[in-house]
Amino acid sequence: MTIRYPNGQPYTSKSSLPSHHNPLKKSNYSGRGMTLEQDIDETNTYYLHQGVAVIHKKPTPIQVVHVDYPKRSAAVIREAYYKQASTTDYNGVFQGAYIDFEAKETRNKTSFPLKNVHEHQIEHMRQVLTQSGICFFLIRFQPADEVYLLEAHHVIKYYDEQQRKSIPKKDIEQYGHTVKTGLHPRIDFLKTVKQLYF
Amino acid sequence: MTIRYPNGQPYTSKSSLPSHHNPLKKSNYSGRGMTLEQDIDETNTYYLHQGVAVIHKKPTPIQVVHVDYPKRSAAVIREAYYKQASTTDYNGVFQGAYIDFEAKETRNKTSFPLKNVHEHQIEHMRQVLTQSGICFFLIRFQPADEVYLLEAHHVIKYYDEQQRKSIPKKDIEQYGHTVKTGLHPRIDFLKTVKQLYF
Repeated sequence: MTIRYPNGQPYTSKSSLPSHHNPLKKSNYSGRGMTLEQDIDETNTYYLHQGVAVIHKKPTPIQVVHVDYPKRSAAVIREAYYKQASTTDYNGVFQGAYIDFEAKETRNKTSFPLKNVHEHQIEHMRQVLTQSGICFFLIRFQPADEVYLLEAHHVIKYYDEQQRKSIPKKDIEQYGHTVKTGLHPRIDFLKTVKQLYF
Repeated sequence: MTIRYPNGQPYTSKSSLPSHHNPLKKSNYSGRGMTLEQDIDETNTYYLHQGVAVIHKKPTPIQVVHVDYPKRSAAVIREAYYKQASTTDYNGVFQGAYIDFEAKETRNKTSFPLKNVHEHQIEHMRQVLTQSGICFFLIRFQPADEVYLLEAHHVIKYYDEQQRKSIPKKDIEQYGHTVKTGLHPRIDFLKTVKQLYF
Protein backbone atom coordinates (compact mmCIF):
# COMPACT_ATOMS: atom_id res chain seq x y z
CA MET A 1 0.00 0.00 0.00
CA THR A 2 1.28 3.43 -0.88
CA ILE A 3 0.89 5.91 1.91
CA ARG A 4 -0.17 9.27 0.57
CA TYR A 5 -0.27 12.84 1.81
CA PRO A 6 -3.69 14.50 1.85
CA ASN A 7 -2.75 16.15 -1.47
CA GLY A 8 -2.33 12.76 -3.11
CA GLN A 9 1.46 12.82 -3.26
CA PRO A 10 3.11 9.57 -2.18
CA TYR A 11 4.62 9.72 1.27
CA THR A 12 8.40 9.70 1.06
CA SER A 13 9.70 8.28 4.27
CA LYS A 14 12.92 9.75 5.53
CA SER A 15 12.67 7.79 8.76
CA SER A 16 14.68 4.97 7.18
CA LEU A 17 17.77 7.00 7.90
CA PRO A 18 20.06 5.63 10.61
CA SER A 19 19.46 8.07 13.45
CA HIS A 20 15.81 7.09 13.74
CA HIS A 21 16.23 3.35 13.55
CA ASN A 22 19.02 2.88 16.00
CA PRO A 23 17.58 3.02 19.53
CA LEU A 24 21.03 3.78 20.87
CA LYS A 25 20.80 7.10 19.08
CA LYS A 26 17.43 7.90 20.61
CA SER A 27 18.77 10.89 22.49
CA ASN A 28 19.77 12.46 19.21
CA TYR A 29 16.42 14.07 18.49
CA SER A 30 17.61 16.63 16.01
CA GLY A 31 18.64 13.97 13.52
CA ARG A 32 22.38 14.38 13.43
CA GLY A 33 23.57 13.33 10.02
CA MET A 34 20.49 14.85 8.42
CA THR A 35 21.07 18.13 6.69
CA LEU A 36 19.35 21.17 8.10
CA GLU A 37 17.30 21.28 4.91
CA GLN A 38 16.04 17.72 5.47
CA ASP A 39 15.12 18.51 9.06
CA ILE A 40 13.24 21.63 8.03
CA ASP A 41 11.44 19.81 5.21
CA GLU A 42 10.25 17.20 7.71
CA THR A 43 9.22 19.94 10.12
CA ASN A 44 7.23 21.74 7.41
CA THR A 45 5.55 18.47 6.41
CA TYR A 46 4.64 17.93 10.07
CA TYR A 47 3.23 21.46 10.31
CA LEU A 48 1.24 20.93 7.12
CA HIS A 49 -0.28 17.61 8.24
CA GLN A 50 -1.11 18.96 11.68
CA GLY A 51 -2.75 22.05 10.20
CA VAL A 52 -0.23 24.29 11.99
CA ALA A 53 1.11 26.21 9.00
CA VAL A 54 1.67 26.06 5.24
CA ILE A 55 5.37 26.55 4.56
CA HIS A 56 7.26 25.21 1.54
CA LYS A 57 10.79 25.31 0.24
CA LYS A 58 10.94 27.07 -3.09
CA PRO A 59 12.27 25.02 -5.99
CA THR A 60 15.87 25.72 -7.03
CA PRO A 61 15.77 28.18 -9.94
CA ILE A 62 17.14 26.61 -13.12
CA GLN A 63 17.76 28.26 -16.48
CA VAL A 64 16.65 25.81 -19.14
CA VAL A 65 18.53 26.12 -22.45
CA HIS A 66 17.62 23.02 -24.42
CA VAL A 67 14.76 20.53 -24.16
CA ASP A 68 14.18 17.35 -26.16
CA TYR A 69 10.63 16.19 -26.79
CA PRO A 70 10.87 12.46 -27.48
CA LYS A 71 7.80 10.73 -28.91
CA ARG A 72 5.62 8.93 -26.39
CA SER A 73 7.60 10.10 -23.35
CA ALA A 74 8.18 13.11 -21.16
CA ALA A 75 10.18 16.15 -22.23
CA VAL A 76 13.86 15.81 -21.29
CA ILE A 77 15.89 18.87 -20.34
CA ARG A 78 19.29 18.37 -22.01
CA GLU A 79 21.04 21.62 -21.15
CA ALA A 80 20.31 23.78 -18.14
CA TYR A 81 22.16 25.79 -15.50
CA TYR A 82 21.62 26.58 -11.85
CA LYS A 83 20.69 30.20 -11.21
CA GLN A 84 21.30 32.10 -8.01
CA ALA A 85 18.11 32.40 -5.97
CA SER A 86 16.78 35.94 -5.76
CA THR A 87 14.85 35.38 -2.54
CA THR A 88 15.08 33.24 0.56
CA ASP A 89 14.48 29.49 0.43
CA TYR A 90 11.33 29.14 2.52
CA ASN A 91 8.08 31.04 2.80
CA GLY A 92 4.48 30.49 3.74
CA VAL A 93 1.63 31.37 6.06
CA PHE A 94 1.11 30.81 9.79
CA GLN A 95 -2.15 32.02 11.33
CA GLY A 96 -2.51 34.72 8.66
CA ALA A 97 1.06 35.96 9.02
CA TYR A 98 3.61 35.83 6.24
CA ILE A 99 6.66 33.76 7.21
CA ASP A 100 9.94 34.03 5.28
CA PHE A 101 13.29 32.55 6.20
CA GLU A 102 16.64 31.23 5.15
CA ALA A 103 18.32 28.20 6.74
CA LYS A 104 22.08 27.87 7.09
CA GLU A 105 24.34 25.51 8.95
CA THR A 106 27.99 25.88 9.79
CA ARG A 107 30.79 23.68 11.10
CA ASN A 108 32.28 26.77 12.67
CA LYS A 109 32.26 26.68 16.49
CA THR A 110 32.52 30.34 17.37
CA SER A 111 30.85 32.32 14.60
CA PHE A 112 28.43 32.22 11.67
CA PRO A 113 30.21 33.20 8.43
CA LEU A 114 28.27 35.63 6.24
CA LYS A 115 29.95 34.54 3.02
CA ASN A 116 27.02 32.32 2.08
CA VAL A 117 24.49 35.10 2.56
CA HIS A 118 23.95 36.90 -0.74
CA GLU A 119 23.18 40.55 -1.20
CA HIS A 120 19.89 39.88 -3.02
CA GLN A 121 18.74 37.74 -0.09
CA ILE A 122 19.48 40.60 2.28
CA GLU A 123 17.65 42.96 -0.07
CA HIS A 124 14.69 40.58 -0.17
CA MET A 125 14.63 40.47 3.63
CA ARG A 126 14.60 44.27 3.82
CA GLN A 127 11.62 44.30 1.46
CA VAL A 128 9.77 41.66 3.47
CA LEU A 129 10.32 43.60 6.72
CA THR A 130 8.97 46.75 5.03
CA GLN A 131 5.79 44.76 4.31
CA SER A 132 5.59 43.64 7.97
CA GLY A 133 6.42 40.06 7.12
CA ILE A 134 8.04 37.81 9.72
CA CYS A 135 11.56 37.21 8.51
CA PHE A 136 14.52 35.39 10.06
CA PHE A 137 17.45 33.03 9.71
CA LEU A 138 17.58 29.53 11.13
CA ILE A 139 21.22 28.86 11.96
CA ARG A 140 22.53 25.48 13.02
CA PHE A 141 25.93 25.15 14.62
CA GLN A 142 26.81 21.59 13.69
CA PRO A 143 29.51 20.97 16.33
CA ALA A 144 27.16 21.83 19.21
CA ASP A 145 24.04 20.66 17.33
CA GLU A 146 22.26 23.87 18.31
CA VAL A 147 19.68 25.75 16.22
CA TYR A 148 19.02 29.46 16.64
CA LEU A 149 16.37 31.71 15.20
CA LEU A 150 17.94 35.07 14.46
CA GLU A 151 15.58 37.78 13.27
CA ALA A 152 16.44 39.30 9.90
CA HIS A 153 17.13 42.81 11.19
CA HIS A 154 20.07 41.49 13.23
CA VAL A 155 21.59 39.75 10.20
CA ILE A 156 21.05 42.87 8.08
CA LYS A 157 22.86 44.96 10.70
CA TYR A 158 25.92 42.68 10.66
CA TYR A 159 25.80 42.49 6.87
CA ASP A 160 25.77 46.28 6.58
CA GLU A 161 28.83 46.58 8.83
CA GLN A 162 31.17 45.88 5.96
CA GLN A 163 34.16 44.98 8.11
CA ARG A 164 32.27 42.02 9.57
CA LYS A 165 32.58 38.76 7.69
CA SER A 166 30.77 36.76 10.33
CA ILE A 167 28.46 36.99 13.34
CA PRO A 168 30.09 35.83 16.60
CA LYS A 169 28.22 32.91 18.16
CA LYS A 170 28.05 34.75 21.47
CA ASP A 171 26.07 37.51 19.72
CA ILE A 172 23.69 34.95 18.23
CA GLU A 173 23.25 33.48 21.73
CA GLN A 174 22.47 36.98 23.01
CA TYR A 175 20.21 38.35 20.25
CA GLY A 176 18.90 35.10 18.79
CA HIS A 177 16.57 32.50 20.24
CA THR A 178 17.25 28.82 20.83
CA VAL A 179 14.91 26.63 18.80
CA LYS A 180 13.66 23.48 20.44
CA THR A 181 14.66 20.35 18.52
CA GLY A 182 12.97 16.97 18.83
CA LEU A 183 11.53 14.08 16.90
CA HIS A 184 8.20 15.55 15.73
CA PRO A 185 8.70 18.25 14.69
CA ARG A 186 12.44 18.13 14.43
CA ILE A 187 13.02 21.88 14.54
CA ASP A 188 10.04 23.57 16.15
CA PHE A 189 10.79 27.08 14.89
CA LEU A 190 7.13 28.16 14.88
CA LYS A 191 7.04 27.75 18.64
CA THR A 192 9.76 30.39 18.78
CA VAL A 193 7.96 32.54 16.19
CA LYS A 194 4.79 32.37 18.26
CA GLN A 195 6.59 33.49 21.42
CA LEU A 196 8.21 36.37 19.56
CA TYR A 197 5.36 37.69 17.42
CA PHE A 198 1.99 36.51 18.71
CA MET B 1 25.49 51.38 -18.62
CA THR B 2 23.67 48.43 -17.17
CA ILE B 3 20.50 49.37 -15.36
CA ARG B 4 20.11 47.34 -12.20
CA TYR B 5 17.36 46.54 -9.79
CA PRO B 6 17.96 47.50 -6.16
CA ASN B 7 18.99 43.90 -5.52
CA GLY B 8 21.80 44.19 -8.03
CA GLN B 9 20.18 42.09 -10.75
CA PRO B 10 20.43 43.59 -14.23
CA TYR B 11 17.20 45.16 -15.43
CA THR B 12 15.62 43.02 -18.12
CA SER B 13 13.54 45.28 -20.23
CA LYS B 14 10.32 43.84 -21.53
CA SER B 15 9.25 47.21 -22.88
CA SER B 16 10.87 46.40 -26.22
CA LEU B 17 7.80 44.37 -27.02
CA PRO B 18 5.51 45.78 -29.72
CA SER B 19 2.52 46.92 -27.69
CA HIS B 20 4.57 49.47 -25.78
CA HIS B 21 6.49 50.95 -28.68
CA ASN B 22 3.69 51.44 -31.12
CA PRO B 23 1.75 54.57 -30.15
CA LEU B 24 -1.20 53.37 -32.20
CA LYS B 25 -1.58 50.59 -29.68
CA LYS B 26 -1.66 52.98 -26.76
CA SER B 27 -5.23 52.06 -25.86
CA ASN B 28 -4.17 48.47 -25.38
CA TYR B 29 -3.06 48.87 -21.79
CA SER B 30 -3.19 45.24 -20.78
CA GLY B 31 -0.46 44.29 -23.22
CA ARG B 32 -2.34 42.09 -25.63
CA GLY B 33 0.12 39.60 -27.04
CA MET B 34 1.87 39.36 -23.69
CA THR B 35 1.14 36.24 -21.74
CA LEU B 36 -0.70 36.62 -18.47
CA GLU B 37 2.48 35.43 -16.74
CA GLN B 38 4.52 38.22 -18.33
CA ASP B 39 1.93 40.82 -17.33
CA ILE B 40 1.88 39.55 -13.74
CA ASP B 41 5.68 39.45 -13.57
CA GLU B 42 5.81 43.10 -14.65
CA THR B 43 3.10 43.95 -12.15
CA ASN B 44 4.99 42.24 -9.32
CA THR B 45 8.20 44.05 -10.33
CA TYR B 46 6.27 47.33 -10.25
CA TYR B 47 4.87 46.51 -6.80
CA LEU B 48 8.35 45.59 -5.56
CA HIS B 49 9.99 48.80 -6.83
CA GLN B 50 7.17 50.96 -5.49
CA GLY B 51 7.36 49.28 -2.10
CA VAL B 52 3.75 48.11 -2.44
CA ALA B 53 4.28 44.37 -1.91
CA VAL B 54 6.80 41.55 -2.21
CA ILE B 55 5.35 38.88 -4.50
CA HIS B 56 7.37 36.47 -6.62
CA LYS B 57 6.65 33.65 -9.01
CA LYS B 58 8.06 30.40 -7.72
CA PRO B 59 10.62 28.70 -9.95
CA THR B 60 9.37 25.74 -11.98
CA PRO B 61 10.21 22.56 -10.07
CA ILE B 62 12.70 20.42 -11.97
CA GLN B 63 13.97 16.95 -11.10
CA VAL B 64 17.69 16.90 -11.87
CA VAL B 65 19.05 13.47 -12.83
CA HIS B 66 22.50 14.11 -14.23
CA VAL B 67 24.92 17.03 -13.92
CA ASP B 68 28.27 17.53 -15.61
CA TYR B 69 30.96 19.53 -13.82
CA PRO B 70 33.31 20.76 -16.53
CA LYS B 71 36.65 22.22 -15.46
CA ARG B 72 36.77 26.01 -15.26
CA SER B 73 33.08 26.49 -16.04
CA ALA B 74 29.64 26.22 -14.48
CA ALA B 75 27.89 22.93 -13.75
CA VAL B 76 25.73 21.83 -16.68
CA ILE B 77 22.52 19.90 -16.09
CA ARG B 78 22.43 17.21 -18.79
CA GLU B 79 19.30 15.28 -17.83
CA ALA B 80 16.35 16.68 -15.97
CA TYR B 81 12.55 16.55 -16.04
CA TYR B 82 9.76 18.96 -15.30
CA LYS B 83 7.84 18.12 -12.15
CA GLN B 84 4.26 19.07 -11.44
CA ALA B 85 4.06 22.01 -9.04
CA SER B 86 2.64 21.09 -5.64
CA THR B 87 1.51 24.61 -4.81
CA THR B 88 0.31 27.70 -6.63
CA ASP B 89 2.65 29.77 -8.79
CA TYR B 90 2.75 33.05 -6.87
CA ASN B 91 3.01 34.04 -3.25
CA GLY B 92 4.29 36.85 -1.09
CA VAL B 93 3.44 39.53 1.43
CA PHE B 94 1.29 42.66 1.22
CA GLN B 95 1.02 44.83 4.33
CA GLY B 96 1.68 41.88 6.61
CA ALA B 97 -0.85 39.62 4.87
CA TYR B 98 0.06 36.41 3.10
CA ILE B 99 -0.93 36.49 -0.58
CA ASP B 100 -1.18 33.30 -2.64
CA PHE B 101 -2.57 32.89 -6.12
CA GLU B 102 -2.64 31.04 -9.40
CA ALA B 103 -2.95 32.74 -12.78
CA LYS B 104 -4.73 31.17 -15.73
CA GLU B 105 -5.86 32.42 -19.08
CA THR B 106 -8.32 30.91 -21.49
CA ARG B 107 -9.37 31.44 -25.11
CA ASN B 108 -12.80 30.22 -24.16
CA LYS B 109 -15.48 32.92 -24.36
CA THR B 110 -18.16 31.58 -22.07
CA SER B 111 -16.45 29.56 -19.35
CA PHE B 112 -13.20 28.87 -17.51
CA PRO B 113 -12.19 25.19 -17.95
CA LEU B 114 -11.02 23.49 -14.76
CA LYS B 115 -8.89 20.91 -16.54
CA ASN B 116 -5.71 22.91 -15.92
CA VAL B 117 -6.39 23.21 -12.21
CA HIS B 118 -4.72 20.32 -10.40
CA GLU B 119 -5.96 18.61 -7.27
CA HIS B 120 -2.81 19.41 -5.29
CA GLN B 121 -3.26 23.09 -6.10
CA ILE B 122 -6.83 22.94 -4.78
CA GLU B 123 -5.53 21.13 -1.70
CA HIS B 124 -2.86 23.78 -1.23
CA MET B 125 -5.51 26.50 -1.46
CA ARG B 126 -7.64 24.78 1.18
CA GLN B 127 -4.61 24.70 3.49
CA VAL B 128 -3.82 28.38 2.87
CA LEU B 129 -7.43 29.38 3.64
CA THR B 130 -7.25 27.37 6.89
CA GLN B 131 -4.24 29.53 7.83
CA SER B 132 -6.19 32.72 7.00
CA GLY B 133 -4.07 33.45 3.96
CA ILE B 134 -5.49 35.51 1.10
CA CYS B 135 -5.91 33.11 -1.78
CA PHE B 136 -7.40 33.53 -5.24
CA PHE B 137 -7.24 32.89 -8.98
CA LEU B 138 -6.49 35.54 -11.57
CA ILE B 139 -8.37 34.51 -14.70
CA ARG B 140 -7.95 36.20 -18.03
CA PHE B 141 -10.47 35.70 -20.79
CA GLN B 142 -8.31 36.34 -23.84
CA PRO B 143 -11.10 37.05 -26.34
CA ALA B 144 -12.56 39.86 -24.23
CA ASP B 145 -9.19 40.78 -22.69
CA GLU B 146 -10.78 40.82 -19.25
CA VAL B 147 -9.10 39.81 -15.98
CA TYR B 148 -11.06 38.62 -12.96
CA LEU B 149 -10.01 37.91 -9.41
CA LEU B 150 -11.96 34.92 -8.16
CA GLU B 151 -11.46 34.00 -4.52
CA ALA B 152 -10.22 30.47 -3.90
CA HIS B 153 -13.31 29.28 -2.04
CA HIS B 154 -15.41 29.79 -5.18
CA VAL B 155 -13.01 27.75 -7.30
CA ILE B 156 -12.88 25.03 -4.65
CA LYS B 157 -16.68 24.87 -4.64
CA TYR B 158 -16.85 24.33 -8.42
CA TYR B 159 -13.98 21.87 -8.25
CA ASP B 160 -15.74 19.81 -5.59
CA GLU B 161 -18.89 19.61 -7.69
CA GLN B 162 -17.53 16.72 -9.70
CA GLN B 163 -19.96 17.08 -12.58
CA ARG B 164 -18.60 20.55 -13.38
CA LYS B 165 -15.68 20.69 -15.76
CA SER B 166 -15.68 24.47 -15.99
CA ILE B 167 -16.93 27.65 -14.33
CA PRO B 168 -19.40 29.61 -16.48
CA LYS B 169 -18.16 33.13 -17.25
CA LYS B 170 -21.43 34.61 -16.04
CA ASP B 171 -20.73 33.08 -12.60
CA ILE B 172 -17.23 34.57 -12.59
CA GLU B 173 -18.77 37.95 -13.47
CA GLN B 174 -21.17 37.53 -10.56
CA TYR B 175 -18.88 36.12 -7.84
CA GLY B 176 -15.52 37.41 -9.07
CA HIS B 177 -14.13 40.93 -9.28
CA THR B 178 -12.92 42.76 -12.35
CA VAL B 179 -9.24 43.67 -12.07
CA LYS B 180 -8.20 47.04 -13.46
CA THR B 181 -5.62 46.70 -16.23
CA GLY B 182 -3.30 49.45 -17.35
CA LEU B 183 0.27 50.34 -18.22
CA HIS B 184 1.85 50.51 -14.75
CA PRO B 185 0.95 48.23 -13.18
CA ARG B 186 -0.52 46.14 -15.95
CA ILE B 187 -2.83 44.05 -13.77
CA ASP B 188 -3.53 45.91 -10.54
CA PHE B 189 -4.81 42.93 -8.58
CA LEU B 190 -3.72 44.31 -5.21
CA LYS B 191 -6.16 47.18 -5.64
CA THR B 192 -8.90 44.54 -5.77
CA VAL B 193 -7.34 42.65 -2.83
CA LYS B 194 -7.30 45.84 -0.79
CA GLN B 195 -10.97 46.52 -1.48
CA LEU B 196 -11.88 42.96 -0.55
CA TYR B 197 -9.75 42.32 2.54
CA PHE B 198 -8.53 45.56 4.11
